[in-house]
Amino acid sequence: MLAQKIAILGLGLIGGSLARSLKRLPDPPYIIGYDSDLDSCAEALARGAIDAVADNPAAAVSEVEIAVIAVVIGAGEQILREMLPGLGPTTVVTDVGSVKQPVTDAARAILGGHFHNFVPGHPIAGSERSGFAAATATMYDGCTVVLTPEEETSADAVAKVEAMWQATGAARVIAMSTQLHDRRLAATSHLPHVIAFALVEALSKLETDEDIFLLAGGGFADLSRIAASSPPLWRDICLSNRTELLKVLDRFCSELQTARAALAEDDGRTLEEMFAHASEIRTRFRDTRRS
Amino acid sequence: MLAQKIAILGLGLIGGSLARSLKRLPDPPYIIGYDSDLDSCAEALARGAIDAVADNPAAAVSEVEIAVIAVVIGAGEQILREMLPGLGPTTVVTDVGSVKQPVTDAARAILGGHFHNFVPGHPIAGSERSGFAAATATMYDGCTVVLTPEEETSADAVAKVEAMWQATGAARVIAMSTQLHDRRLAATSHLPHVIAFALVEALSKLETDEDIFLLAGGGFADLSRIAASSPPLWRDICLSNRTELLKVLDRFCSELQTARAALAEDDGRTLEEMFAHASEIRTRFRDTRRS
Repeated sequence: MLAQKIAILGLGLIGGSLARSLKRLPDPPYIIGYDSDLDSCAEALARGAIDAVADNPAAAVSEVEIAVIAVVIGAGEQILREMLPGLGPTTVVTDVGSVKQPVTDAARAILGGHFHNFVPGHPIAGSERSGFAAATATMYDGCTVVLTPEEETSADAVAKVEAMWQATGAARVIAMSTQLHDRRLAATSHLPHVIAFALVEALSKLETDEDIFLLAGGGFADLSRIAASSPPLWRDICLSNRTELLKVLDRFCSELQTARAALAEDDGRTLEEMFAHASEIRTRFRDTRRS
Repeated sequence: MLAQKIAILGLGLIGGSLARSLKRLPDPPYIIGYDSDLDSCAEALARGAIDAVADNPAAAVSEVEIAVIAVVIGAGEQILREMLPGLGPTTVVTDVGSVKQPVTDAARAILGGHFHNFVPGHPIAGSERSGFAAATATMYDGCTVVLTPEEETSADAVAKVEAMWQATGAARVIAMSTQLHDRRLAATSHLPHVIAFALVEALSKLETDEDIFLLAGGGFADLSRIAASSPPLWRDICLSNRTELLKVLDRFCSELQTARAALAEDDGRTLEEMFAHASEIRTRFRDTRRS
């Protein structure tokens, strides 16, 4: 059953969209918002995304069933510390971060006896834009949400967080191990961001007096779109998951070097084999996902 | 003034879209189509994209003002040879390939005295799909078309090709040197394709018993979309432009290695500087292009 009182700490793209999607419900929960940026609080309140603004994290969580940490990764530990005095014995705490190991370690250390009520979570949704202004009520429609509960995590707490995400319009809520989540996201999200940033950076250094982007078409636009993402956010995500990210980055560089060698040697067969295998896989992905 | 009779040799995505976009005009040109795949010819004829089918390239071009070569790069030379007997003294020949140096060299060698009527061209448009079935009448709406005339190219021939592209809905037709075109496209189109293929290939090798793509979100979908492109087409494009492609691929790998070193050394400052510079440039590109 959906919680009737929810606190959302951090009213940016992810937290703001969570609030707005829940407020679409016929019988929406009461939502208390907290954000260190008072303009975001005021805008969320004015738009009806939240019902009240709390002065601090402890006050925000003191009377709710679920407290959602939706701040950038680097601010998570501080919020956990600040909310601790306000947590009741059954208050469920969850988060939305793209990397699960560090926040799980931090929660275990900081929450102590409350740790069994902490449910690490990650909605696989987002945009290269950020802030409450970019938040939408439809952000989670059809998306996948991953929860990575630990052995000691309470099943009731997991069920409450699952019910909350189902109420947002998410298509499925699945559970997996922290390590598997972090490994998979390194490959399918964190590496693509590093690639996009590096591609734009490389191109920007090619010509100084001419506009290299003048002839950029749809392929470049698609490939570089996420390079417009928030730099400090992605610095933190990449550093938080650097062990897994380095592994998959090296794997990618190795494929690039294979392609480079084939190009240098005019070896069309190797190039076509790689392209054909990748194209077959990507076409299957497209036909399954329609994206 | 738009030519009244046009031959299109190759009725795939690019040639088929050219025919369909011209047929939107209130007073459309008469279009003769040629394709070694007879099904494409029949479909183009049935859909009114072309008015007649020619048996061979020489027959296709014998009575037209403009002959457009829209076959894959690897087949261009052969088509040039085959059309030669049908060319009249003022027949303009143009093409649509993504790399301009090789086709220009081939045309100079094959066309001989006709070479001044050859206008190398490239509409910056496309899709990861291919074939006449994927062709649309709106493909060139708002796009940029590049022409790379040589010193000896006739100004009249250039004007005729320019008028044809303007009639398709293209936003602008610009001229630049062959070398500049090939260098820029290596960076903004050919490199992104190699990256997309290599990314999908790297991910496909990470886990054999689990679906690494299960958690793939919008970032991965965008970044890998063009990996569904035609493998032989992109093998030919990459090999045709390998000198420029190798240069920009090395530049990209160097940026990746900078990011790798920063990650390995937990150097958040270097990482954020790169991300911030790239994000600023990509945001400017987005705001200018709305893509």
